[in-house]
Amino acid sequence: MKLATLNDGTRDGRLVVVSKDLTRCCAAGYIAPTMQAALDNWARVAPELEVLARDVEHEAVPCERFHERQAHSPLPRAYQWADGSAYINHVELVRKARDAEVPDSFYHDPLMYQGGSDGFLSPRSPIPLVDPAWGCDMEGEIAIIIDDVPMGVSAEDAAGHIKLIMLVNDVSLRGLIPGELAKGFGFFQSKPASAFSPVAVTPDELGDAWNGSLIHLPLMVDYNGAPFGRANAGKDATFTMAQLVAHAAKTRNLSAGSIIGSGTVSNKGADGGPGQPVAEGGLGYSCIAEIRMIETIRDGKPSTPFMSAGDTVKVEMRDADNHSIFGAIEQEVVAA
Amino acid sequence: MKLATLNDGTRDGRLVVVSKDLTRCCAAGYIAPTMQAALDNWARVAPELEVLARDVEHEAVPCERFHERQAHSPLPRAYQWADGSAYINHVELVRKARDAEVPDSFYHDPLMYQGGSDGFLSPRSPIPLVDPAWGCDMEGEIAIIIDDVPMGVSAEDAAGHIKLIMLVNDVSLRGLIPGELAKGFGFFQSKPASAFSPVAVTPDELGDAWNGSLIHLPLMVDYNGAPFGRANAGKDATFTMAQLVAHAAKTRNLSAGSIIGSGTVSNKGADGGPGQPVAEGGLGYSCIAEIRMIETIRDGKPSTPFMSAGDTVKVEMRDADNHSIFGAIEQEVVAA
Repeated sequence: MKLATLNDGTRDGRLVVVSKDLTRCCAAGYIAPTMQAALDNWARVAPELEVLARDVEHEAVPCERFHERQAHSPLPRAYQWADGSAYINHVELVRKARDAEVPDSFYHDPLMYQGGSDGFLSPRSPIPLVDPAWGCDMEGEIAIIIDDVPMGVSAEDAAGHIKLIMLVNDVSLRGLIPGELAKGFGFFQSKPASAFSPVAVTPDELGDAWNGSLIHLPLMVDYNGAPFGRANAGKDATFTMAQLVAHAAKTRNLSAGSIIGSGTVSNKGADGGPGQPVAEGGLGYSCIAEIRMIETIRDGKPSTPFMSAGDTVKVEMRDADNHSIFGAIEQEVVAA
Repeated sequence: MKLATLNDGTRDGRLVVVSKDLTRCCAAGYIAPTMQAALDNWARVAPELEVLARDVEHEAVPCERFHERQAHSPLPRAYQWADGSAYINHVELVRKARDAEVPDSFYHDPLMYQGGSDGFLSPRSPIPLVDPAWGCDMEGEIAIIIDDVPMGVSAEDAAGHIKLIMLVNDVSLRGLIPGELAKGFGFFQSKPASAFSPVAVTPDELGDAWNGSLIHLPLMVDYNGAPFGRANAGKDATFTMAQLVAHAAKTRNLSAGSIIGSGTVSNKGADGGPGQPVAEGGLGYSCIAEIRMIETIRDGKPSTPFMSAGDTVKVEMRDADNHSIFGAIEQEVVAA
């Protein structure tokens, strides 16, 4: 099934079930008022939502028109947002770009940071930017939402705790990262609010494309209206989403509604190298930092600037029939 | 006023107003069902809670007996837990202990990490520890809860957003920290669930002791039943709580119910040095890592082990009349 949170002016919005083609939705408030409430009682609530989803599909219940622009992030605020780095090609490129090494451990011990989760941007909200020197970047990623996960869970068992899947634009302020990471405590100011796709879907909605807790489809990232990234989220993943959940749960329980991110989706080139821009026939990149590194390797310096007011990003994923699965994240940077 | 969340088996517990002497409480559910609900609407709700608090004080409403052991952390789960390092003496000692330098920037740019907030321990919950080699440590700290804070808030304005104050035992797994920080993304597995004091209080409850957004009282940390730390939270603070809030809000809005921590409370010695243990007439330490560093300086190696099953910690703060302000965090490490 597909779920969304409509922005109704409240902090948590209201839960709706969305038709598979994203055209219609039906209020699910009588089952669970909010997405978090549904996740808090998933085992009991999910079957009831599934019944409603079937009714929506068969037009057996009164529906309203679903407008992606009215959707908030599926969880407008969450109790946890932990972002991993499943795609080591991204890590290799970004580290190169800031002259930092990739430790060997990154290839067997997932990199993960605790992100801010007290307020996410809507999928169509502008990205407020105070200072262009902060180096605003988008990062196209996959994110999953879990139910309650016990401490010490195995990766095998973790897979069953993945209840919903979304896309995310993990906004990063590249100009603030080196100084912040040098302090040793990880990202804080360099990771402002992120935005998630208008719709979150259960794994079964992905059919065969969901395999080994990865989505085997291209993540479509457009920048200023042109294709920028088409990396396949099922390829070149050093870690699966289930492995990232297990990593997060090593020393503590994870509560229902926690969101775990894949890190920027990134594929190597056909030659095993860092790949080519879309305009040059490659699969491109899901963030600007990567293309800047490619430019640096090729030209000695980066030529694509980071985002500033007026720049737009679109993140979407389409099924084999070219239908949007999650709806689109579409954001414009605005001066704040 | 003083507020608490009673553990009623639900994820968020139920909100009560507690008498100043911590002996009685009254259900506040008709005003706001949970602490988060109160914070979500603080401007409207706080005056109603204040009226109830006066009635509780005057025994003008039916009260129940308040038992600290029935209290959950005031926010059993929160949308944000961001922990700073206001007390540079702690940072200096802990960095020395792991052979890491203190950058100059730490003295003017607050150190802060994004902590996990999806589930906190109750103030009397055991601390589950899988492996003693993880180096379990307590950290006695001050924490504040804010209402909605806009991006870019000044430290002056941030002070007014501090609505509630608590104590916290920020559990740390010292054995996992060096490896995790070396990866560059900050703490994750090395910071399992923390526990907060049974009661959260409004700043006015502290009277003159709340000055410059710091509490000018000793933080009483007992370890295995003996005084271990008596550092004054108003002394040797490089940053105020308001400055930490402003730091957190530099690049994003902060949502109501976000918790900001002070970092481990730590005083320098009378001679400007790292201070003495309580048993030797000093103010002691609010975590084990500090005393281990003192031992290393003095004896060439640490002699106090980190916590293992059976070890207990108590964190409390008393007013000028020796009355407990927040109730006590009392936790025992148990094998998990």
